[in-house]
Formats: sequence, structure tokens, C-alpha cells
Amino acid sequence: MTSATPPPIFESIAIIGVGLIGGSIALAAKKHGAAKRVIGIGRSRERLELAQQAGVIDDVCVGIAELGSLNNPPKLVIVCTPVDRIVGDVLALAAVVPPSTLITDAGSVKHEICEQLRLIDGHDDRPAFVGSHPLAGSEKQGWEQANADLFQDRLCVVTPDDRTDAEATDRVKLFWQQLGMNTQRLTPVDHDRALAATSHLPHAVAAALMRTLASEHDAFAATGFRSTARIAGGDPAVWVPIFLQNADNLVQEVDGLIEQLQLIKGALADQDEELLETLLGEARVRFNELQQHAP
Amino acid sequence: MTSATPPPIFESIAIIGVGLIGGSIALAAKKHGAAKRVIGIGRSRERLELAQQAGVIDDVCVGIAELGSLNNPPKLVIVCTPVDRIVGDVLALAAVVPPSTLITDAGSVKHEICEQLRLIDGHDDRPAFVGSHPLAGSEKQGWEQANADLFQDRLCVVTPDDRTDAEATDRVKLFWQQLGMNTQRLTPVDHDRALAATSHLPHAVAAALMRTLASEHDAFAATGFRSTARIAGGDPAVWVPIFLQNADNLVQEVDGLIEQLQLIKGALADQDEELLETLLGEARVRFNELQQHAP
Repeated sequence: MTSATPPPIFESIAIIGVGLIGGSIALAAKKHGAAKRVIGIGRSRERLELAQQAGVIDDVCVGIAELGSLNNPPKLVIVCTPVDRIVGDVLALAAVVPPSTLITDAGSVKHEICEQLRLIDGHDDRPAFVGSHPLAGSEKQGWEQANADLFQDRLCVVTPDDRTDAEATDRVKLFWQQLGMNTQRLTPVDHDRALAATSHLPHAVAAALMRTLASEHDAFAATGFRSTARIAGGDPAVWVPIFLQNADNLVQEVDGLIEQLQLIKGALADQDEELLETLLGEARVRFNELQQHAP
Repeated sequence: MTSATPPPIFESIAIIGVGLIGGSIALAAKKHGAAKRVIGIGRSRERLELAQQAGVIDDVCVGIAELGSLNNPPKLVIVCTPVDRIVGDVLALAAVVPPSTLITDAGSVKHEICEQLRLIDGHDDRPAFVGSHPLAGSEKQGWEQANADLFQDRLCVVTPDDRTDAEATDRVKLFWQQLGMNTQRLTPVDHDRALAATSHLPHAVAAALMRTLASEHDAFAATGFRSTARIAGGDPAVWVPIFLQNADNLVQEVDGLIEQLQLIKGALADQDEELLETLLGEARVRFNELQQHAP
């Protein structure tokens, strides 16, 4: 009994921004047979050629304009640039690829991007855009850190709106599923609210914690501190645009966290054992509940 | 060329509180030949006998009093109970073991404990106590999670004071070093100040973060959130007494963190890209500096 490998759902795909995420998508797409060829698009020919030599991508394209001159344009393009560059990259793409090319992204915020890109949806003569956010990553950077299994069993949020073509949405979902991901549909607004709590707040917290630590105490930071602060190692060029695009939700989350810290602080100042037991006990119950959900 | 195994530095040691830390000390001591036999002391005969059957400890002693009736008392006792029980356990021990027995602990706070135990130091007819804090752990519990390599290459802070016998301090340091640890001497006060920043604050932060997360968002918590919140899974029975004994330092650290969060919040509210770049950029620099120190 052998199971035949299903044919690739896309003959060729292109990835704009071949870093940790873009590189991992390239590797996962090849591993799972979701694409026969992967074109890497970026700004540095040198970096792209190194990624090609390393087998992360098959073809190199310097700049989006160059993509328009290919005889055989990709059927799917995934935009993996920082969130402040996604709208511009999608619009540049839409000007050079045929209407049959499908465009998605991997941005960590969705509302502002999807809102600005509504204009290209619902037009038969323009390629369709479907917002995506694969919930996987690392504080590390660059295609050298790319990993074909980064997305395995993780969740990809897909954020079509009322103008998004339903078939395009299905094809994008299927692509992420072929990479081993589960998919869930959310509105861009709901996505940004959820991710403010689950991703952007922990990043703010890790950064604040790291900034609080006096250098003289570094030697005493064991695995607990390092786990809590790990994501502070992320690239500000990636995170600042995310923070700016999700500022309102994130401000609310930071306020909620400060409120919880004030509760703990009050209990400490009062030596209130019972309240501390409640606060830490409830936190632990929530932690155990969270373990019921696979990451 | 064979290197002979050095003789155990203690013929037999006893561990009060055979949980994750106590069990790991037992396993590490046997692995590194730091002790020939390990006596496990606890309150539940059933749990201790299971640990014995699993090979974590060699002998079982229910209650500290029972230790006094042994023909061959241990040369070193490591008290691994929650910090609010350490002083009582050390005093109970001091009443039943000979003056030649050395006592140390593995508590995460040191000032209050060492202060209360000064009275037994400097007396030739009482066993010596030397405060220790091996900086290793996990949010998990129980000897079932014990690991002979938990302490490998980690730091153990040893906190003798002016009355502590110098030879006793050296022997305790040597014991932790035989377990693969590096050791550093700090005053109990300096220890508690450092650990408020590096261990107790991240615990408060992880708990606050966990309490901030609404259940409906659990499905969207990926590895970043889980890393930041991981230590919130720790046992409140362990952590509440630590918080209470180090409340003043921890209140100061929580204030420092809230200040950093307010800075981030202000930058978000003002859409101040430059300030956000500074805040996240400096956090990342500190994160990279921290990587220069092994955990």
C-alpha cells in the first residue's frame, strides 16, 4: 500500500522577503510538495543567491518589477516583508503579475493592511489578495534559521473580508494546510485584537523586562528569566511597525497587564498571603488551561 | 589512561523534600559520585517509597525526628522544602543530628532564612548551616520530573554570613561544584536583591500575563506567548512564600517594570516610531548582552 504524493497545488510560487518566515515557507512548500519551484524575491542579489545555493529557493528575482518579465509567472506570491512594507509590495505585485496570480502575506497585523488592500479585491482584472498570518516564528532572523517544520501543526489565521473572492480564500487556506498548518478564519479586526493579547503584549512585556534588568544582575538570570524575556531578541525593524499598526489594541492590553501587576504589588506590600495565593493560583489554572490548546 | 573516580565527598547525605529540586540533587549526587547513599526525608512514606523504587533515593525517612535514630547519620543535609518551612526544618534537624553534620538548603530567598538561622552558627555544639541557592528549576513538580543534569554548568549562590564557619562554607561549595555547578558567594541581602530582578519579577510578570489573557484568545497563543508565560505554571505553594519573604525588593522591581511598560504605552499612544525603535532596540541589545552569560 503506497500513497501517491498529491500533485503540487501550485506549479511555482514566489516569496517576497526570504528571511526566517519566507525561507521556512519555501522549505515547507518543497517538503510537502505544495509547489514545484520557489522564486525568492528580495533586494539583495547576494543574499538571495546564497539562499539559492543553500537550496532554500530555486530562482532569484531582485525586486518585484523583475517578476513581471518572467515567461512563467508564479501562481501564488506570499509577501513576507515587515508589515509596513506589505501594502506597497502587494500593490507593486498587482501591477506586474497577471490577474490569475493569487497574493497573500504573512504579516502579524491584518486590519490596516487588509483595509488598504480592499481596493484591489472585487476587480476581475486585478489579482486577488487574501490576508494570512501563520502563527509561528522565532526571535531569530534570516533564511539561515529557516526550518521546513516551523509551521507543522501550527495555526494560520486567514482574514478575508466581504469583498474577498471565496475561491481565492479556499486556495490560500489549502496552501497553508498543505504546509501542515491548521487554518482558522477571522475578520482582520478580530485577528488584531486577539494577537495584541497573545503576541504583541508578550513582546512588549519581554522588552520591558529586559530593560528593567540591571547588567550587574545578568549572571543571576537563569532559565526562567530567559524564557520570559526570549522574544525581546526579535528585530525592532519587524516589531516597531507591528506595534504601530496595532497600537490601540496593544495600549489596552498593556493597561490590563499593569492592572494585574498592581494587584500583585498591592498583595506584596500588604503581605497578603491569601490574595497572593489567589493571584498566582488563578494564573496557574489559566496556564494549565492554555496547555489544552496545542501551540 | 584512565582517570580514577574521586571518592565521594560525603558517605551519605540526606535530602528533606524530595521534589523536582531535591530529587535532582539526589540523582546528580549519585551520578557525580558526590555521595554514596542518599536518604530521602519527607512527610509521605508512600511518595518516598515510590521515589526509592524509582532509584531516586536509597533510604526513606518519614519526618526529621526519625533521622535522629539512624546509627549512621548523614554528613550533609540539604533542605529542599518551600522557603517558609526551611527555618523550622533546619532547627528540627539541628536538634537531632550531631554537630559534625553540615546543613544547607536550596531556597530561592536567603535574607530572612539566614537571619533567623544565625543563632545556630558560631556554636561548636550545633551543626553549621550555610545558605545555598542553586539557580535551576522548572515550572514542573515532583521527583518524577527530577533530572541528574538539572544543575550542570548552572550557578549556585552560596550565602554565608560573618558567623558562618569558613570550612563549612568550602565544603558546601565543593558539594555543589561536584554536581557540575559553578558557585558564587553573595551576602543574603545581595542575593535577594539580584533574585528579585532575575527570578521573582519574571514570575510575577508571567502570572500577570497569564491572568490578562482572555480564554477566547487561548487558541491564538503561539510559542512566543507560551515562552513568556511558562513559569506561571509553577506551584503557588512554592512561590507565595518566596514572594512574601522578598516583598520589598519585588515591589521595587514591579515598579521598575511598570515604568518601562508606561514608556512603551506612551510611545504607542503617540505613534512615536523613533521612541519605539529606541525602546525595543535597547531591549534587544540587553538581550544579546545576556546571552554572553551562560544561564
